[in-house]
Amino acid sequence: MTQTIPVIEKILSANDKLAQENLARIDAAGVFAINIMASPGAGKTSLIEQTVRALAGKYRVGMVNGDIATSLDADRAAAAGAAAVQINTGGNCHLDAVQLRSALDQLDLENLDLLIVENIGNLICPAEFRLGTHKNVIVASIPEGDDKPHKYPSMYRGADVLVLNKIDLLPYVPFRMDFFSQGVAALNPGLTQFNLSCTTGEGLDAWLGWLEGRVRK
Amino acid sequence: MTQTIPVIEKILSANDKLAQENLARIDAAGVFAINIMASPGAGKTSLIEQTVRALAGKYRVGMVNGDIATSLDADRAAAAGAAAVQINTGGNCHLDAVQLRSALDQLDLENLDLLIVENIGNLICPAEFRLGTHKNVIVASIPEGDDKPHKYPSMYRGADVLVLNKIDLLPYVPFRMDFFSQGVAALNPGLTQFNLSCTTGEGLDAWLGWLEGRVRK
Repeated sequence: MTQTIPVIEKILSANDKLAQENLARIDAAGVFAINIMASPGAGKTSLIEQTVRALAGKYRVGMVNGDIATSLDADRAAAAGAAAVQINTGGNCHLDAVQLRSALDQLDLENLDLLIVENIGNLICPAEFRLGTHKNVIVASIPEGDDKPHKYPSMYRGADVLVLNKIDLLPYVPFRMDFFSQGVAALNPGLTQFNLSCTTGEGLDAWLGWLEGRVRK
Repeated sequence: MTQTIPVIEKILSANDKLAQENLARIDAAGVFAINIMASPGAGKTSLIEQTVRALAGKYRVGMVNGDIATSLDADRAAAAGAAAVQINTGGNCHLDAVQLRSALDQLDLENLDLLIVENIGNLICPAEFRLGTHKNVIVASIPEGDDKPHKYPSMYRGADVLVLNKIDLLPYVPFRMDFFSQGVAALNPGLTQFNLSCTTGEGLDAWLGWLEGRVRK
């Protein structure tokens, strides 16, 4: 029986193994954790701000923010009511499971209900590194253009939830919803999708409802 | 005297050495070459479309497009009148000098005046890989947000020209021009900047004028 252990260790990368350990730790604390990924400027931080603001009275929310430089985003999440930990990667293009483990060490996990990880703004590299969260959430946005699922397939393929943000800008930019949806469906059929605007608040309720359905009562 | 050669070779990375060779080749052909970098959806392809359309009658324009998947962007550049070469990196997050060398092999360099390289949509990784072009152009966009120079310093530090696109959306999104400019000035004082909209055409003339001033007559 012990022979199976080295085989498993060979199959799992070092990062994936650590990601499993992170998830076990998060599960043991009864926390629901999401990893939010997007290109720069799609609205990850705005979505987190709105989410924390809406849920902070009901749930204890922790937030891990990955950034190349500055703590601008973590500051915004903290101002909205989250226990925030900042990871500055100093140029690294993605978060990995080692970095999440360090962040978990700094959080009082037992006293959280929801953990939101904000990944580095990048539509490519973060898709390859599991962190140990329950769900991967990708944030797309209307002004980015309708061709993004076609051009960045890995990110869309690995997502559990898609948030399409900035729908208030639909009247001002060319965006073919059909072409966008075709790209998504080809990569990830049946992907749960929420269309919303963090600026106007339209559509936020459905996203918050999905999240609340997964956080322990 | 020969002792200096290995020293130089140690200092330059393999990629930088190839980039120098690419630049020598481009210079020998009398071509002016730019490397356009931006986050996904900032408008690299739209800027290239507008540029090729405006200059195709006067100059012979070549275009190298890096993409993870699809040839959507190269198709748009070719439709606008450029000799286009597509590089699909298959998941790689940046172009490198080896890839540009392969693309140069496919172009009739001697019969070009301007070469436009469209890098992968990524605000982080492309900054670290010289290709062998004359100028690095970064495209930012209004809906991405005013904090991007603060959060992605390497890309802004290494740019020779900044194009701030989608200024037609300024009335619809919160964007503090002062905060954006402060970030840029801290990283790259005196950076040449063009504010424009590829949708309305506003501001394109100044960008085209800058480019024309550098292409051989």
